Amino acid sequence: MARINQNYDKLAAGYLFPEIARRARAFAEQHPGVELLRLGIGDTTLPLTPTVVAGLRAGAERLGSAESYTGYGDYEGERWMRAAIASVYRERGVELELSEIFVSDGAKGDSGNIQSIFSADAVVAVQDPAYPVYVDTSVMAGRTGPYDSVRGQYQGIVYMPCTEQNGFFPEVPAGKMDLVYLCSPNNPTGAVATHDQLASFVEYARAREAVILFDAAYSAFIRDPSLPQSIYEVPGAKSCAIEINSFSKSAGFTGVRLGWAVVPKELVAEDCPPGKLNAMWYRRQSTFFNGPSNVVQAGGAAALSPEGRAECRAMVDEYLANARIIREGLTRAGLACFGGTNAPYVWARTPGGMSSWDFFDLLLREAHVVTTPGSGFGPSGEGYIRLSSFGLRRDTERAVASIQSTLGKA
Amino acid sequence: MARINQNYDKLAAGYLFPEIARRARAFAEQHPGVELLRLGIGDTTLPLTPTVVAGLRAGAERLGSAESYTGYGDYEGERWMRAAIASVYRERGVELELSEIFVSDGAKGDSGNIQSIFSADAVVAVQDPAYPVYVDTSVMAGRTGPYDSVRGQYQGIVYMPCTEQNGFFPEVPAGKMDLVYLCSPNNPTGAVATHDQLASFVEYARAREAVILFDAAYSAFIRDPSLPQSIYEVPGAKSCAIEINSFSKSAGFTGVRLGWAVVPKELVAEDCPPGKLNAMWYRRQSTFFNGPSNVVQAGGAAALSPEGRAECRAMVDEYLANARIIREGLTRAGLACFGGTNAPYVWARTPGGMSSWDFFDLLLREAHVVTTPGSGFGPSGEGYIRLSSFGLRRDTERAVASIQSTLGKA
Repeated sequence: MARINQNYDKLAAGYLFPEIARRARAFAEQHPGVELLRLGIGDTTLPLTPTVVAGLRAGAERLGSAESYTGYGDYEGERWMRAAIASVYRERGVELELSEIFVSDGAKGDSGNIQSIFSADAVVAVQDPAYPVYVDTSVMAGRTGPYDSVRGQYQGIVYMPCTEQNGFFPEVPAGKMDLVYLCSPNNPTGAVATHDQLASFVEYARAREAVILFDAAYSAFIRDPSLPQSIYEVPGAKSCAIEINSFSKSAGFTGVRLGWAVVPKELVAEDCPPGKLNAMWYRRQSTFFNGPSNVVQAGGAAALSPEGRAECRAMVDEYLANARIIREGLTRAGLACFGGTNAPYVWARTPGGMSSWDFFDLLLREAHVVTTPGSGFGPSGEGYIRLSSFGLRRDTERAVASIQSTLGKA
Repeated sequence: MARINQNYDKLAAGYLFPEIARRARAFAEQHPGVELLRLGIGDTTLPLTPTVVAGLRAGAERLGSAESYTGYGDYEGERWMRAAIASVYRERGVELELSEIFVSDGAKGDSGNIQSIFSADAVVAVQDPAYPVYVDTSVMAGRTGPYDSVRGQYQGIVYMPCTEQNGFFPEVPAGKMDLVYLCSPNNPTGAVATHDQLASFVEYARAREAVILFDAAYSAFIRDPSLPQSIYEVPGAKSCAIEINSFSKSAGFTGVRLGWAVVPKELVAEDCPPGKLNAMWYRRQSTFFNGPSNVVQAGGAAALSPEGRAECRAMVDEYLANARIIREGLTRAGLACFGGTNAPYVWARTPGGMSSWDFFDLLLREAHVVTTPGSGFGPSGEGYIRLSSFGLRRDTERAVASIQSTLGKA
């Protein structure tokens, strides 16, 4: 008799974004004339750039000819794709071997799947608030106890509060941590870790043989040259950190799907010599995965060409300008705002101590703006909402004006 | 201190296909003038059809315009994609709700990932020989004991021998099984299960609340109308079977990556009512996965259009003709051959009781043909090799002639 994985029953609620979509859909059905403005999910809206479209098209056409057709590629992505990624790291002073880069269908999958190579009893630590995938995949893999609905936390997970007091980046906590998720520029708070902040975690991880799972999916939004775009800019990080990144936000690939993980040869863990975790991830990917789509990789390579990079940078600039519009507009509306500089997300404190979901519902109902309730990212997100800069300019401006008008009325 | 998932250390050897690639590469490096003919890995060689290329191209171009750009799609694939898949099932008399279809980046991932929704102590049963992914993912997920190198088996896995005596399809074994992998048309033996053979497993699974994981990745090769292309053609199968399928072999998407799983609402398990496993797989996919690529889905939808289906059917016909050339050619060379009808793989007994790897090495060294050693698929595969029909016609003919000549010499 087959039994289910009972860890799924521990999951406290639906994954955050489907729940937001459900509430927005319910509102839209009850108010058919009303147009909703979406600053919620971090979903890109600007079209792919001409160079990227040409790359995808060429990738498709190449497969239509007997001379240039190819079937299975390398499980870890095409060599030219990994070489293009390595050359971007090289600009930041980070040298990677091509066998340390594993191209995937996106950062979301990698950030959950990476746990597979670690022991089932690994203690997972997350920034609080954090991208829900880190916690939910830990729950489903059995790395947590039950959900404590009073504290809004799963037992067994180490939550590292990110608050106004610490500038939304945690001090290294005292307790035991084995796998430490860090995300910078941060989703959801928009905080960007400094070199020293990352160094404090690298120091911890090296001393305790912990492994940092560094989510750099928003690194393209960093414009301040003093801020690290890769954790490997911190000396020693290769021995203690896996880095995950994505084309989703840097090139508009949310629906196209392409990302990568770096698992350095130097990486070690308890009783695990250099090279072994790299080989294990290769084994995991070659067994559970068949490599990223060749058509999509052709688009990714185009995005990393000189023309593609210039175009994609201009696209990110558009989103950064949206972030400034949101931050400044909501600040003028009286909300305390954080993030939105070198980052696509603005993190706004709810007015008058309102709960995140109450403020979400108010903005949905009155301003017709979809946001993301901060409490969906963890207990320290309570009392905040996340606003995304990935909308179109016009919609962003209208949404900000609508929120300003709603809060003026309130 | 992070510790590794020690289940990985149980893995007996590298995943089969990388090991074959390694030996082929080593031979090629030592014999630089020699051209290798590949009948090994089931890798497609015919180009994508014009309709499919046009679909992919249109999918890319649609993303290049602000009016038609889309970001994240449904986690379970676009509605039109699922509707196209459902209509193919309908032709076989199988009615599926769209919420029972989960489009993915390929059958390989699904066939391993599906275990996630079942308990860690589930007893996995496999046909022996079988596609290595079923066993290897079970090992990595901790559902087995150590490898028994004498028996060539992992402890805790139920191996169901597929032999010449039973026509390469097992009787239902007596012992306990919770998750039963079945593959038809079979990889590697090329055997195609009859309606009655599948019904015997459906009867078992319904009686014991076991779940069949039915891999139908080669269903497009079935030309005999009496043979089931979907396990759901067997009454009652929706309550006990998950079906996995792919565009890899039916449309040449080995590198493009697209597949799907069907998790029926009726499916039950121990203490698990109808609907729950369907909801759990949605939860798994929406948490670990972000939907298949939108560009790739545009190609997949084109492959399921009337023109696309006609073109893809002609492509599969080409491979089926290759299979006949291999089967007949090797039979003439004195080998006992099985499969290769309604299936892309030919399963050949090695001559004189030679081991699979010895015969693999002989054919590599003397005939310059890359095959797949049967023992790589499980202990009952010892003494056989698998030959793939996915090569080009000319290469297939040359490879068969070269094997004939080598065996003539031997």
